[in-house]
Amino acid sequence: MKHPKDFSEFVYGSGTIKMEDEFAFISKISPKQTHQPSLICGIGDDAAVYRGAPNLDEVVCVDTMVEGIHFRRDTLTPFQIGKKGLAINVSDVAAMGAVPAFYLVSIAIPPTWTEEELGEVFKGMDEIAKQHNMDLIGGDTVSIKESLVLTVTVIGRVEKGRGLYRSSAKAGDLIFITGAVGSSAAGLDLLFEKGLNGDFNEKEQILVKSHQEPLPHVAEGRMLAYSQKRIALNDVSDGVASEANEIAEASQVKMIIEADKLPIHEAMNAYPLEKRLKWALFGGEDFVLIGTVPKEEAVELADQFQTQGHLFKIIGFVEAGPASVYIKQDDELKKLKKHGYNHFQKRG
Amino acid sequence: MKHPKDFSEFVYGSGTIKMEDEFAFISKISPKQTHQPSLICGIGDDAAVYRGAPNLDEVVCVDTMVEGIHFRRDTLTPFQIGKKGLAINVSDVAAMGAVPAFYLVSIAIPPTWTEEELGEVFKGMDEIAKQHNMDLIGGDTVSIKESLVLTVTVIGRVEKGRGLYRSSAKAGDLIFITGAVGSSAAGLDLLFEKGLNGDFNEKEQILVKSHQEPLPHVAEGRMLAYSQKRIALNDVSDGVASEANEIAEASQVKMIIEADKLPIHEAMNAYPLEKRLKWALFGGEDFVLIGTVPKEEAVELADQFQTQGHLFKIIGFVEAGPASVYIKQDDELKKLKKHGYNHFQKRG
Repeated sequence: MKHPKDFSEFVYGSGTIKMEDEFAFISKISPKQTHQPSLICGIGDDAAVYRGAPNLDEVVCVDTMVEGIHFRRDTLTPFQIGKKGLAINVSDVAAMGAVPAFYLVSIAIPPTWTEEELGEVFKGMDEIAKQHNMDLIGGDTVSIKESLVLTVTVIGRVEKGRGLYRSSAKAGDLIFITGAVGSSAAGLDLLFEKGLNGDFNEKEQILVKSHQEPLPHVAEGRMLAYSQKRIALNDVSDGVASEANEIAEASQVKMIIEADKLPIHEAMNAYPLEKRLKWALFGGEDFVLIGTVPKEEAVELADQFQTQGHLFKIIGFVEAGPASVYIKQDDELKKLKKHGYNHFQKRG
Repeated sequence: MKHPKDFSEFVYGSGTIKMEDEFAFISKISPKQTHQPSLICGIGDDAAVYRGAPNLDEVVCVDTMVEGIHFRRDTLTPFQIGKKGLAINVSDVAAMGAVPAFYLVSIAIPPTWTEEELGEVFKGMDEIAKQHNMDLIGGDTVSIKESLVLTVTVIGRVEKGRGLYRSSAKAGDLIFITGAVGSSAAGLDLLFEKGLNGDFNEKEQILVKSHQEPLPHVAEGRMLAYSQKRIALNDVSDGVASEANEIAEASQVKMIIEADKLPIHEAMNAYPLEKRLKWALFGGEDFVLIGTVPKEEAVELADQFQTQGHLFKIIGFVEAGPASVYIKQDDELKKLKKHGYNHFQKRG
């Protein structure tokens, strides 16, 4: 019934790794250097401490991945599990327009995992962390009987009052997206079919990589926050349909997405349109950003994005009306529920 | 492979609860009102947002409890599991001298748990939260095949530069403790013996309650931070031996604890001394605070604590020497390792 409460106490931890190895493991995963100047105390005390700032709002989120539910060892390597575990949260921070700064990792380890594999999980997180100068500042390491459970908390910061919420959309706005959607779902489909070491052709490799190592759109989120325009924003973790519905509900608007404008990677060209559209709308885990912007601001933003080499694609528009999302295809409107189509409706 | 990332997306969540019930459940656990004026956005967007403050340091920690490892359903009720899950973290924040403000809850739910039981887990957390005006600001709800996993992240705040660390002890200091130790371990022993609905006498009930519903010493931590004295501090989550060793290591000092000064609840009087001492030193989960203070400051602090009705008991002293902890009993010194005694040594 010992309850190790942070990495400094991992030594009494899980019983998964032998006592001597645990010291080495903690030493291995503890950062040798930190990047955030506001950090006062990282791993090694009861809690981490960092300095508040008068000009910043604090942004915090948490996400859990469970072995057998959110990933399988035949779809992601341990490195990719770690990378994705952090990326999911960084994507949430990006969707607020914030800069990720710190993360804490709580990991429940079953006896089926080796120390080397666990090290890979932390290396995967470290790769994402390095890209954003993030510091690992705490966590918990416990044992569990069956499935690995990886819970990551991320703390980010955004200039005071500039956070981007789902509730800012208004009738007349345009809907934009910052990257291709559906690739991750297509990649997962391939992984289910062929397994982790399957023989993938060049296009398939692109899709598989999209599923295994999606990159959060932090730079895009920052450009949007920095623009100080009225922007509603969400990240595409659960598919375009779901994310658009969240914006529609939070903003109480009607959103119309034009099917032929959805950016779908050309690596998916071989699939029938229906399948591509299904993955784009309902697949999720693409970690691009979807949002709305006043019509008159869209061109300026598009220019800025193009200059920086980022995608800013208009995929629809916002109307007054009860909170709802429609997909427009061949002049026909279908209502998009969070996870499926329902009741057809002729446009006009 | 859907990955619900916060409560607003619980609806596509775990598959444990039926779709209709999930809405009701989320609505039930989502706070109807918030208490922290700095909160800008709680549950319902990609991440929570709260306002930074120039005069405050941010304190953050995370802890995971796994069914079958950290609790069993025959030792804690669902309400107590929730209460303890939050209390563990609040205790860590208290050990920094900080005020707990926010919490996020990630819960992996196996099919063996009912919606009512899950509601009880959240009610238990809410009870602790109410005591400290804390707001639930986010989380994640996922499914798991076997054991419930409860991960709580707590954010607290402390006046700039006043956080209390383990590394502040110096030779000449006195060691203090803010409450009785060993009760939780004794209570667990009784629960193992008689089960959740066992027939406990009055004294046993005190011990069982100590294990099931320990209260973090936030007020005590605040008094210590407020005193602005040089204080090293830790909470007793893993037993006095372990916590003292952490202070000794972080501060590079030798600590001597006097066995007859350890506050042990009179409800434990019936147990042999050896057992009482073992539980006090190695039991853990008492959530009192242990620390060091300069000798000349101890009386003032003791007076302040007494005025407020809190315990402030001197249990030993700090000497120069290699990082180590000794227990002094009948003029004999035994070295205290984190989880056991070793090599005896006559006090000379």
